[in-house]
Amino acid sequence: MDVEKLAEGVAAGDRRALARAITLVESGRADHRAMAAALLSTLGTARQALRIGLSGTPGVGKSSFIEAFGTLLTGQGLRVAVLAVDPSSARTGGSILGDKTRMERLSRDPNAFIRPSPSQSHLGGVARRTREAVALCEAAGFDVVLIETVGVGQSETMVAEMTDIFVLLLAPAGGDELQGVKRGIMEMADLILVNKADGALKETATRTCADYAGALRLLRKRPQDPEGFPKAMCVSAAEETGLETAWAEMAALAEARKDSGWFARRRAEQAKRWFEEEVRAGLLARLTGDAGVRAKLEALGEAVASGERSSADAAAELLAVLRG
Amino acid sequence: MDVEKLAEGVAAGDRRALARAITLVESGRADHRAMAAALLSTLGTARQALRIGLSGTPGVGKSSFIEAFGTLLTGQGLRVAVLAVDPSSARTGGSILGDKTRMERLSRDPNAFIRPSPSQSHLGGVARRTREAVALCEAAGFDVVLIETVGVGQSETMVAEMTDIFVLLLAPAGGDELQGVKRGIMEMADLILVNKADGALKETATRTCADYAGALRLLRKRPQDPEGFPKAMCVSAAEETGLETAWAEMAALAEARKDSGWFARRRAEQAKRWFEEEVRAGLLARLTGDAGVRAKLEALGEAVASGERSSADAAAELLAVLRG
Repeated sequence: MDVEKLAEGVAAGDRRALARAITLVESGRADHRAMAAALLSTLGTARQALRIGLSGTPGVGKSSFIEAFGTLLTGQGLRVAVLAVDPSSARTGGSILGDKTRMERLSRDPNAFIRPSPSQSHLGGVARRTREAVALCEAAGFDVVLIETVGVGQSETMVAEMTDIFVLLLAPAGGDELQGVKRGIMEMADLILVNKADGALKETATRTCADYAGALRLLRKRPQDPEGFPKAMCVSAAEETGLETAWAEMAALAEARKDSGWFARRRAEQAKRWFEEEVRAGLLARLTGDAGVRAKLEALGEAVASGERSSADAAAELLAVLRG
Repeated sequence: MDVEKLAEGVAAGDRRALARAITLVESGRADHRAMAAALLSTLGTARQALRIGLSGTPGVGKSSFIEAFGTLLTGQGLRVAVLAVDPSSARTGGSILGDKTRMERLSRDPNAFIRPSPSQSHLGGVARRTREAVALCEAAGFDVVLIETVGVGQSETMVAEMTDIFVLLLAPAGGDELQGVKRGIMEMADLILVNKADGALKETATRTCADYAGALRLLRKRPQDPEGFPKAMCVSAAEETGLETAWAEMAALAEARKDSGWFARRRAEQAKRWFEEEVRAGLLARLTGDAGVRAKLEALGEAVASGERSSADAAAELLAVLRG
C-alpha cells in the first residue's frame, strides 16, 4: 500500500480512499500500525470538523434521526461523516451490518460518509480506531463528524471524551423510565433530544421533554456554557421536525465555547490524553506482541498459580526480560 | 530494614512484625518494592487462610459485625486478621481511623489482627497492597482473613476477586430498597447476612431476609456450590445471634468447594491474574518512574495538544525511547 497516495486520496476527499484509510487504522498488524502512524502524520491536524457524539439505546430511532439530521446538514452544503461505536459488536463478533441499509438516503448522498462499527476485541481498541477515524474524516474535509454509540457501559464516556458536543437521543417515556437514564450520562449531555415527537406519541414526548428539562435544571451550570445549556428539546426524525432548531442549538453552543477559548482547550486536553493512552497501550502491547514474551508470561503465570513462585518475584523477572 | 529478620518475625506470628511488613508492601518507593518482593518470596505461600470478603454500605453495622464475628472465631481458637479496603479513603486522603476504636474488643484480642485502610491514590494500588497484605497474614499463620469493603464502585469486584467466599452484609429495609442492591453484587454474594435482626427491627429483618432469599433463588445456580447457595440469613451483631450459623455456612461452603477442586482452581486463577496485573502495573510504572521519561512524555503531550505532532507519531517516539 502506498501511504503517500492514500494520503493524497484522503486529502482530496475521496470517500473510497477514506474507507481504505480507516480499514488501515483498524488493523492490528504491526506493519499496518506503522503505515497508519505515517498516514496520520502526513495528513496532520490542520482541517477540523465539529465532532458530535450521539448516544441512545436501541429503539429510540437513532438511525432514522441520523438519516434525517445528516440529510438536513448536507442540504445546507455541509459534508457529514457518521462513525459508529458499538462495543456490543465486539462480543457478537460482527459489524452493524444494518447501518447503511437503515440510512438509505444518507448512504447515497455524495456529501455523506457512513462507516459501520468494526468488530474489535475491546473498548480500548475501539477508542483508538474511532479517534483515528475521526482524524481521517477531518483530513478528508468533512465539516461534521457524528459519532453514534448505543447507550451501554462506558461507551458514552469514551465518545464524550473524543467529541466537542454530546447529544443524548431518547424516546418518549413515562415518569418511571426517566430514572433509567443514569445521572452520569445526563451530566455528559449538552443536548437531550426526545425523538418520535409525532403522531400518537407527540404529547408524551412533550411531557418527557419537560421532565428532562427539569432534571437538567437540577444539574450544576457548567461555566463553559451559555445560559440555558444543557437543554432538552423535542424532535421527530419521521416528520423531520425540530431538526433545524437542534442543529442551530449545537452550532450556537460550539460557537460560544469557541469564543470563550474552552473549545480549543478541551481539544488540546483530549489530544494529550489520547496520546498518553496510546503510549500505555503501546507499552502493554509488548506483553502480547512477541511470542517469546508470551510464552514466558504464560510459564511464569503457571508457576505463580501453582504456588511455586511469588507473584511479585515472577513479575520482577518478566519485567527484567522486557527491559532487555 | 533487615528483610530476613522481618520474615522471621512474620512467620512467627508476631503482630508488630506483620504490621511493619504491611507498611513495607504499602510503600511505593522502588527500594521498598524490591524488599517487599524479597519478603514475599522468602515467606512463600505454603500457609493459607480462608479468605472472606465482606461488603456492606455504611450504616449496616459492619464494624459491630466484625467485632462480634471475629470474637466468635477467636473464641474457637482461630486466629483472625481483618483488612479494610476503602477506596473513598484515597479521596479523603486518610485511613479509616475509627476501625480499631469501633472494634475495641477484637483489637485487644491477641488472636486478632486489625489493619485499617491505607491512603492510596487509586484502586489498582489498593488491590496490590491488599493482596500482598493477605499473603503476609497467611504467612503469619492466620486462619481467617476478613477483607471488608464499603459498597461503592468497583471495590466489591476487586475484593471478590481476591477472596474465597464473598459475604454481603445488609440492613433490614423496605421492599423498595431491595432494588438498591445491584444485580452484579447480588451475583457475587455467596451469603447475604441481614444484620440488626434484633429489637424493633427483628420483624423487618426477617422479611428483608425472605425477600433476598427470593431474589437469590432467581439467580442461576452455580455449579461449584452445594444445594441452597447462595443463601440469605438473619444475624444480630448486637445480640450476637446467628453468627455461629453464619460461620458454619461459610465453613461448609468452603469445604464443599475444596472437595470439588473448585477452591484450589479458583485460587490458582486468582494468583495468575494477580501476577499478570502486576506485570502490567510494572510496565506502566516506567512512564512515571524516570524523570527523563516523564519530561519526554510531558513535552510530547504538549506537542500533540498543540497539533504540532500526531498522537500516533509521538507515541511511537516515546515507545522507542522506552525500548532503549
